[in-house]
Formats: sequence, C-alpha cells, structure tokens
Amino acid sequence: MMLKANAVALCLAASLSAVSGQTFQRLGTCPDLGCVLPPDQQDFLPGQEFDIRFEIHAPKNGSEAFNDGVPDEKFTATIAKDGHEEKSIADFFKQSEPELEKWTFSWFEDLFAQDAGTPSVVNVASKAYRRVALYEPGDYTVTLKYYDGKTTTAKWTVRPLAMKKKAKNVIFFIGDGMTTNMITAARLLAHKTVNGRYQSLLSLDKFPVVGHQMTHSIDTYITDSANSASALYTGHKSSVNAMGVYVDSSPDPQDDPKVETIVELLFRIWGSAWGAVSTAFIADATPIALSGHTRRRGEYGILIDQALNGVSNYSWTKTNGPDAYFGGGAEQFIPGEDSLNGKDYYAEFANKGYSVSWNKTALLAAPNDQKALGIFCKSNFPVWLDRNIYTENIESLENNPSGGEGAATDLPGQKEMTLKAIDVLHERGGKKGFFLMSEAASIDKQMHALDYDRALGDLLELDDTVRATLAKLEELGILDETLVVVSADHGHGFDVFGNSDTKYAAAQDDDRAKRNAIGVYENSGLSQYTEPKEGVSYGTGANFPLNWDPRYVIAAGLGANPDHRESFGVGEKPRTPAAVGADGTVYVNHEDRPDGFLVNGTLPTDQGQGVHSLTDVPVYAMGPCQETFGGTYSNIDVFFKIASCLGLGQPRNKTQEDHGCKSKKAKL
Amino acid sequence: MMLKANAVALCLAASLSAVSGQTFQRLGTCPDLGCVLPPDQQDFLPGQEFDIRFEIHAPKNGSEAFNDGVPDEKFTATIAKDGHEEKSIADFFKQSEPELEKWTFSWFEDLFAQDAGTPSVVNVASKAYRRVALYEPGDYTVTLKYYDGKTTTAKWTVRPLAMKKKAKNVIFFIGDGMTTNMITAARLLAHKTVNGRYQSLLSLDKFPVVGHQMTHSIDTYITDSANSASALYTGHKSSVNAMGVYVDSSPDPQDDPKVETIVELLFRIWGSAWGAVSTAFIADATPIALSGHTRRRGEYGILIDQALNGVSNYSWTKTNGPDAYFGGGAEQFIPGEDSLNGKDYYAEFANKGYSVSWNKTALLAAPNDQKALGIFCKSNFPVWLDRNIYTENIESLENNPSGGEGAATDLPGQKEMTLKAIDVLHERGGKKGFFLMSEAASIDKQMHALDYDRALGDLLELDDTVRATLAKLEELGILDETLVVVSADHGHGFDVFGNSDTKYAAAQDDDRAKRNAIGVYENSGLSQYTEPKEGVSYGTGANFPLNWDPRYVIAAGLGANPDHRESFGVGEKPRTPAAVGADGTVYVNHEDRPDGFLVNGTLPTDQGQGVHSLTDVPVYAMGPCQETFGGTYSNIDVFFKIASCLGLGQPRNKTQEDHGCKSKKAKL
Repeated sequence: MMLKANAVALCLAASLSAVSGQTFQRLGTCPDLGCVLPPDQQDFLPGQEFDIRFEIHAPKNGSEAFNDGVPDEKFTATIAKDGHEEKSIADFFKQSEPELEKWTFSWFEDLFAQDAGTPSVVNVASKAYRRVALYEPGDYTVTLKYYDGKTTTAKWTVRPLAMKKKAKNVIFFIGDGMTTNMITAARLLAHKTVNGRYQSLLSLDKFPVVGHQMTHSIDTYITDSANSASALYTGHKSSVNAMGVYVDSSPDPQDDPKVETIVELLFRIWGSAWGAVSTAFIADATPIALSGHTRRRGEYGILIDQALNGVSNYSWTKTNGPDAYFGGGAEQFIPGEDSLNGKDYYAEFANKGYSVSWNKTALLAAPNDQKALGIFCKSNFPVWLDRNIYTENIESLENNPSGGEGAATDLPGQKEMTLKAIDVLHERGGKKGFFLMSEAASIDKQMHALDYDRALGDLLELDDTVRATLAKLEELGILDETLVVVSADHGHGFDVFGNSDTKYAAAQDDDRAKRNAIGVYENSGLSQYTEPKEGVSYGTGANFPLNWDPRYVIAAGLGANPDHRESFGVGEKPRTPAAVGADGTVYVNHEDRPDGFLVNGTLPTDQGQGVHSLTDVPVYAMGPCQETFGGTYSNIDVFFKIASCLGLGQPRNKTQEDHGCKSKKAKL
Repeated sequence: MMLKANAVALCLAASLSAVSGQTFQRLGTCPDLGCVLPPDQQDFLPGQEFDIRFEIHAPKNGSEAFNDGVPDEKFTATIAKDGHEEKSIADFFKQSEPELEKWTFSWFEDLFAQDAGTPSVVNVASKAYRRVALYEPGDYTVTLKYYDGKTTTAKWTVRPLAMKKKAKNVIFFIGDGMTTNMITAARLLAHKTVNGRYQSLLSLDKFPVVGHQMTHSIDTYITDSANSASALYTGHKSSVNAMGVYVDSSPDPQDDPKVETIVELLFRIWGSAWGAVSTAFIADATPIALSGHTRRRGEYGILIDQALNGVSNYSWTKTNGPDAYFGGGAEQFIPGEDSLNGKDYYAEFANKGYSVSWNKTALLAAPNDQKALGIFCKSNFPVWLDRNIYTENIESLENNPSGGEGAATDLPGQKEMTLKAIDVLHERGGKKGFFLMSEAASIDKQMHALDYDRALGDLLELDDTVRATLAKLEELGILDETLVVVSADHGHGFDVFGNSDTKYAAAQDDDRAKRNAIGVYENSGLSQYTEPKEGVSYGTGANFPLNWDPRYVIAAGLGANPDHRESFGVGEKPRTPAAVGADGTVYVNHEDRPDGFLVNGTLPTDQGQGVHSLTDVPVYAMGPCQETFGGTYSNIDVFFKIASCLGLGQPRNKTQEDHGCKSKKAKL
C-alpha cells in the first residue's frame, strides 16, 4: 500500500510540476523524474548519429520533493524496435556501460519563488551513451526504469530510407525573423502598383511552391534562432539557446547529447562541399548551428573551433571544415579574449588551407578551388540601409576585421558573399555537389530594435540575393539540379496598419494629435517609397525603394514592445528605442524619435527590445523535390525534406569512401 | 508654346496630386483629370459583363485648379483590341451614345486642409456605358481624349478562355481577418504538443496546397472586407467600402460601374445553385458581395433586395436568388426602418418560394429541395465562445430574429449552417453543381475589439466546420468533384509573443510590475489550454481547448491599438477596450481589464478598435484544380483560379438555356 501511495504522490507531484512550471521548467523534455534524451515523440533520419542520455532527478525540496533528494543510481534502460525484444542500451548499440555521472542543479518553480529567492534543488544521477545510430525505419520504444517501479518511455520514429540524391546542390536562404507580413511590407516599399497591379514583384513572389513551417521549440512555444536553426539543420527540435544537442541538466554546456547535422551527414555520406554566408557575426546561431553542438549559443570561441575542427571533447562525425565561410564576427578570429584560448583563428584557418579575405576586393579575387574564409568586420554587418544609403553611420565604427583601428571598409553584401560562395562550392564540390546556407541576419536584429526600415532593407537585400543567385545558377547551367529553399527560423509580430503623414505629425504638439496623422483603411494611401523624388537618387537599382524618406510613410508596429516613442519613418541613425534607467529596468529612450508619441510597453521591464513571436513562417521552394515543400508542417520537416532530396537516409553507416556501395552510386 | 506650358502645368499639377493626395485621393484610380473606369491594368474574364464610365474632372480650386472648373463635355473615348483599329465605345459595343451626366464633389487634399475646413471642389462631366462584355482574350487599349490634347489610356487584359467545368462544386471558406499568425495561435490553444510534436492538428494543416494572396485595394494598401470580398468574387479590385463596382465620384452610390460576380456568372452560364453562410449579419460585406453592387457597403436594405431580386436600377444579369442563405441580420428582414422601404423581407423571400427558419431546429427540418432562408438573430451572431461557454452573455441579448422580444435561442453554429447549406445546394444543384461561401465573420470583429480569445474561438469554429464539411462531402460521395478553398479577405497585425502568469500579475500593484508576469523566449512555456482542469468540462469536443482560463495564458497583441488596458487571458464578457470620452475622442475604457496595465494607443484618436493590416493572407486548396493555388498572387487571382476551374471563361454570351452549346457540355 505504501508503494501505491508513493506512486500517487509521485503522480500528483509530476502533474503539479507540469501545471506550475510554465514560466520555468525543471527540464522541459522531462515531466517525470526520469528523463530520456532524446525524449518521447522524436523523429530520426536513418543512420543519423546521435547521443543518448538518461537522468534521474531527485528534487530535494519544493513541490516535487522526493526520496530525500537521493536519485536512483541503479536505473536501467532498454530499447526495442517494434515487434522485437528489448535489449539494454549498451547491448543494442554494442557499447560498454558508461560511467555514472552526478550533479546538482536548481531552478525557480515560478515568479513568486524567483522573487522570494527560494529555488528548488535537484540532485541528478545520469549516464550518456555516445555516437549511436538507428538504421532501420520504424518505431522504437525506449524504457527507463527507476525508483522501484517507475517507468518513463520514449517512442522514437526512424523515418523512411532516402538513398537517392535527387538534387545535386541545395541552397538554403534564411531570413532571420522573417514573416509573410514583413515580406508583404518589403514588396510595398520596393515595388510599384498601378491600380492594384504590381508592376514588378519580389523574387520570392515567383517561387512555384509555398509552405508554412511551425517554429516552436521542444519545450516552449516561442523559440530563438539557435534551436530553431538546429531543428532546420538536424530534424530535432531543441530548447532555446541550444543547438545540435538535446538539453540536459548538467552544468557543462558541452556534454549535452548531440545530433548529427545536415552538413555532417552530407560530408560523411557523399563528401560534398558546404558553406555558410551570413550578415551576422559568423559565430551567431544561424550560421554556426550548421556545425555547432552546445547547450549555450554564447560559447562563440568553442563554436568557431567546432566549425573548423569538429567536436573535440567526444568522438563525433566531422567535416573538413566549411569550403566557403563568409560573414562578420572578427572577434572570434583576432587573437584575444573572444577567440578560443586566445588563439589567432585567422592563422588556424589559414593553416588548414584557407584563403582569408577581409574585404570585397579580396573576396572576389580569392581562388575558387581553395577553401575560403571571409570575415569582413567585427560583430554584425552594418545593415543594407547603412551600407548603401546612410553611409555616414558606418564610417566611424571601430569594426576593422583585421583587429586594427578604424572602420571595416569595402564591405561586400549578402549578394556578393553568396555569389562567391557558389563559385567556390561549385568548383570544390565538383560531381559531389554542395550545400550552402545564406542568411539575412538583420531582418530579425532590426525588428528587435523596432527599426522597421532597416529590417525591411535587409529583407530586400535577401530578395535581391535570391534573384542574383537564380541568375547565376542559370548561368552556370546548374539551376535544374539545385534545390533552392527560402525560409525563416521564427517571426516577430510585425505588420503595417496604415500610413502616417510625417509633415502633419511634425506640426502637432501633443501625442494624441500626432496620432491623428495616421491614415487607416481608405486613408492608407499608396506607397510613396516607389515614387521618384527630385534630387534623390541612391543608385541601388530597380528592386529597392526610390525614396526611403517620403512625406507619407508606412505606419507599422509590433504587439510586443518595450516603452518607446513612435513617429514612423526612417531614422537616419540606427535605432535604440529604450534604455536602462537608474533603477536598472528599461525605460523609453527619449533621444529616440523625440518628436514621436509615447507608447507604453507590453513586455517585461528588463526587455529593451522587441521579442520573437509564435507565427508559422513561410517556406519557398524551387527545383528538385520542390513539390514536397507545399502544405503545413513543422520546422523539423524542412530538414527531412532536404535530407531526403539529398539521399541522406542510408541503411548503414555509409561514408564517402565507402567501397561497398559502388552499386548504389548517387544519381547526380 | 502656350499649349506646351499648359501641358507642363497640367503634368506638374497631376504629379503634385499624386504626391500630396495620400491620406485622401480625389479619385483613387484617376491620377489624371480624365478617368477611365475600369481603369488601366485591369483583368477581365472572357464574357464577364461590366459597365464602363468616363469622367472628366475640372477642379475649381486647390492645387489642381484647371479651366475655371469647367469640365470638357466633348470628350471622346475609343477602344481597340491589340492589332485592330480603334472604334468608339458606342460602336464597339453596339450601343447608342448615353446621356451626359454632370455633378460636383469635394475632397480635402490633406489633413491640414481638413483641419482648416478648406475642401477642393471638382466639377465633373461623365458618361456611362452599361452591361458590356469582352469575349476575346488579349489586350485592349481604351483611349480617352479631352481638354484639347490630353489623353488618358487604359490597358485592359482579357484572360484566357476557360470553358471546361473541372470542379462540379466549389466551397469557399473565408475567415474574415484571418492570418497565418492567428492560425498558429489557434492551433496552440486547441491542440496539444508533446516534446514539440502536435498530437493532433487543425483541419487547415492538412490541406495539400498552400498559397498567399495580396489583399490591397485598388487605390490603398490597406483594405476592408467589402472591396476585398469583391476582388475574390469578381477578379476586380475596388476601393474601401465598395463592392461589385469600380468607384466613381458621383453622389449616387448605386450608379457606379458594375462587374459581374462569380455567382452571377455561374448561374448565367451553367444554372448552378449557390449559397452563402455567415456568422455576421447576412447584409454584411463578405456574404453580400456575392450579389451586391454598391459604392457604399452600408446600403443594407438595397443589398438584401439585390441578393433576392438582382440589380433593379439598371439592366443587369441576375440569379434566381441564393438557394441557401443562412446568417444573422434580422434587421434587414423585419419590416421597419432597417429593411428596404420598410418591407417584410421574410415575406418577400417566402413569396419567392423560400422556407424561412429562425432557429437550428427549424433549419435542420427545412426541406432540401426548396430554397432556404435562415436568419437566426439580429446583427452578428454571438461568437462561439459565448454560444458554447460563456452562455450567460447571450441570454439577455435582445436579438430575436422574429422581431419579437427577448434573445435569439437555439442558435446554429457555422458548422450546422454550412452542412445544411451543402444538403440544400447538393439537392437543388443536381448535375449543375453548386457554389457555397461560408464565412467565419467574427475572427475579424473580435480582433477589432482586441478580444483575442473570442477571435480565436471563431477561428477554431471555422476549422471545425471545414473538418465536418470534408467528412460530409466524403459521405455524399462528392469530395473528389468539389474544390474546397479556405482563405481570408485581409489581416490584422496579431501575434503571440510569450505567456503571462495571471496569478503573478494579479498580485502586483503597479503597471510595470504586472508586465513582469510575461514570459518570453525560453520562459514562454507550453500551452495550458490543452491541459485538463479539475472541475472544468465544456463538452465542446476534441478540437477545442480544454481550459480557456488557465493560470498561464498567451501574451498576444497587435501593433495597431486604441488606448487600452491589457491583462491577457479570456474575458468573461465581450470586450470594449476603449470608449469615447467627454471631448468626443477615444480613451481607454477603465472598466475593461481594470487590473491590467495601460497601453497608449498607436491609432488616431477617433479609432476605438484595432484596424486591418497589410499582410498577405494564406490560401488553402484541396480538390480539382488545387495545384493552381500554390505560390503567391493577388486576391483577384483567387477569382480567376476558381472561375477557370468552373469553366466560366466563355467565348460568347453563354446562358444556361443555350442550345448552341450542346456540343460543349461541361465535363462533370
């Protein structure tokens, strides 16, 4: 009877934690006190390498207090393919039993506990099994037994085999934070309508197949760029701030159970070339998650080293490093406090055969048959609007990629970097083809800053890059064998809701009167951004606005804001809408849009910027396998569609040198 | 030389007006002083009937003042098909020259002029040619000549023929105001995830083809439900507040040049049955635009009469009235001030052979072989949340559809109305098939009210209706011959950005502290709406939330707001976030969410609700012709895709009694 009462107590405790732990969670994928990672309901590509970890939690205090905080060290775990007998994990994967690991962590059960400073403490016993794989499609049940009768099961599904390479190359464009709503606004700014008919269109508008992907993380419905990139690149969702791993509760951010990424798979199986382009610092989540495995996206130095040398603390699959690697973030390369162990990573890359470019001139001159590194500034790239129009904003930056003084000059754009990457990858990939990811990073970063113009400028730069890419692929004669996918990692809650007469607003004295400058519905007017303005000529070409500063501007905004002032219309300088006040919390920055009207925020007072939102995001596809991208699916499915198109679902541990599969040569 | 100077003056004046007229426009489709309606850049279905109007404007004062305000009455107009000689309009369409019409209108050139009360006055001379059609695909140029040398040209494109009926039936669901962002949120509320995997999905998630449509009106980038419905139903965009016409500048809202709608075409050509279902009052824009032709959507009485009897002031194509017509809006039927000429429209419909139902019981008992009218309440339907959960809100409404006292009772939902409409249309359409439009009207109406829960509840009702519809079509054996399309007319800038701990928020005293109850990114948690709550059981079924009032709720919002208080979480009563203050402008309603934090608005101070937004909206398609709905296009293209699938692009004036086309019988 005691056992049953304990079981009931445990069930109640578990359900209490599921109900109460919403702001915070003990471990998101582990509602029970026994944790299986990867957890229940996960999908795997046949042959995809991964790690397994089990954890037994013994909460010492709080609502789930159990067993005096003593975790069951004698837990057992088995795995069984449907219809087959279960075996121990070690037996099934032919490994020896790993060492037991132990640690302690704490968490706050809710905001009241955080305010009171009363954390719940959890002692943990754990084991990790490294670098396993499942090859046969079907369902597998993993059973963890602990605490004398408790069970946690996880059902894993290995998806069907996909052995044929249907696309020789894949180019995956990511507009970070980009939603359909933003794409609509960018079209309005850059393309003219006459009586409702657009006279020209975005490149994205011409993709034959559209789909929607769900961006939520594994344990929260709002995501970040790290784990959402991970979902897109591995087929496995993770937790916010993590990539290439399932998050465990251990203190070490580098010991969490890993999953093999698309470039690791592609290199191992076919020996293809791969590359990344980003307008962010290259150690930022979206580019670095192609090769990165960490619980903490801020481990920049380690992540750059992983990109070049692979995972170092465990045996793991690795590539030969990227064949083309272009972006910002010189900090991780210049010897100093932001590079791993203070080493010179320009030298590290050069010693492994890379050409190193610091500006556009060097980039364009770099040989196409050599691995190429291009780091063009410190931190993120200045945005398109500042690189092309408000250029005075970049002249005084101290972002020289060499580590010397002064500003980075002769910057390439996303377009130049992408076209050069294609040249290098096409040459180096040869018959084996290539995978390229190219990111417009500051759509998101500028939406965070409430700088809609700068965000949309980078979205237009992405569209221009796609346009130029399709033309280049055609010119190289490889358009038909290249799958081009454009998507986002997550959204922001942005939309346009009218226009604002800036002249009228400026003539008003008080906030309420300024708001009356806004025209909604039939007063929203037409886009003035596409009307030529006397004396204004940016030389930016046909697919960008003719005037960024008309009298009538878009009135737009987000549902989630810090306190800020709003006047609509482009700012000549990058935007800082809010700032930390004397009490350490965030208040409106009165120097930003001083003539604007005040808007109280809808976010916590430690948030100085906008935040990510829930919405599904668009997927555009063109080329081999394009038809598989229609409809609605999860972000992990983007990985499975691409992996399937690349023939990465192999029935055994295939490597590129594999002689045994001569009879199964990829159809290119 | 004088002529040239005048020409230059005119050009400058015209461009000044194009630049300055953004909040207001003299006539949106007419930047010149000579206007052609339909204007430049419009598309036509072959054989689609329409009216033509020319206007010559003579501004008496203001920035465009010309010719002392005397319009050129001797204007001429010609039309030429590409490669053919031009003919006068009258000759080409074999009509006699119509009478000249004259009127005067005024407008404000911008907000300063409005504040100063200084309108610009325009005198007009005009002619209208009624009920013409173009049958040959290709380009046509219409040339208007006026003011001794001025020319306005319009290029019209008649799209390809489409003579084969590929779908026997079409069901077109419209979620008014529904965006992808809202669909994502509705999924979160109603469907549970386990470790990132949805255990069940929306019906919309299962549609094989997804596309995006652009919703802008013909002359403004933000639209309303009237002209956007018109674009979807006719292939012709119009101006805000108008439907089934191109807006002219005359004072009479019923004389604007018309375009034939999809149900008018379908009835004329094939004799098919048609119907409309809405949770709005049935004279509201989205349902009434199927048959309505007016510059002013508020002409409810006239519009109901048009639905039954067709256009009465001019010769025009007409149907026999809808075969199934279910919604709210008893005011237009009860004899009195809101019905046309005070007539009893229940009797008008009954006299034309309709059964009349006032509640669900009567609806379900109505014979399927008889035309059926069902009006179930005054004004809009109460929303799903109040019909199913907060039912006390509907018990004291005075909305009895009979005109008697008390509340409407025994209300059907969108599902019951739609399933019954299918029964009636399937029976009455017979071999000729049917067209049904079914609208979830209050997604939009509740987003306007910032009542996100009520809006999402109606979105879930739409999804449930789609689910039940597909099952019914399968049961009737007609799923394979029915094209099902789900879309929206326009959006609102809504998204979810985190969660809010309502218990924590309620325990805080000041606004800034209440905001700290919000969890973003990794603190956004999981959906508690799908967790069973002890003692709570709504009986609403598997595809709706188990708990609408959990401790942790979605934190969501819009970029465009009136002043309001925000606390997140469902309101037990419908929401009125703002109210008109003593000075006649809108202020926060402190009785709404009194415990919430204050948010200053971002809208003009005469706006008490949220407004429409720019975003492209999703299109879902299943059935014959589904593949044509992939990609990105304008709302007018939805019409052309449906019309093409129904074989409505005929090379001559085809009617259903046509003997001459026996050899071209539709393939069903």
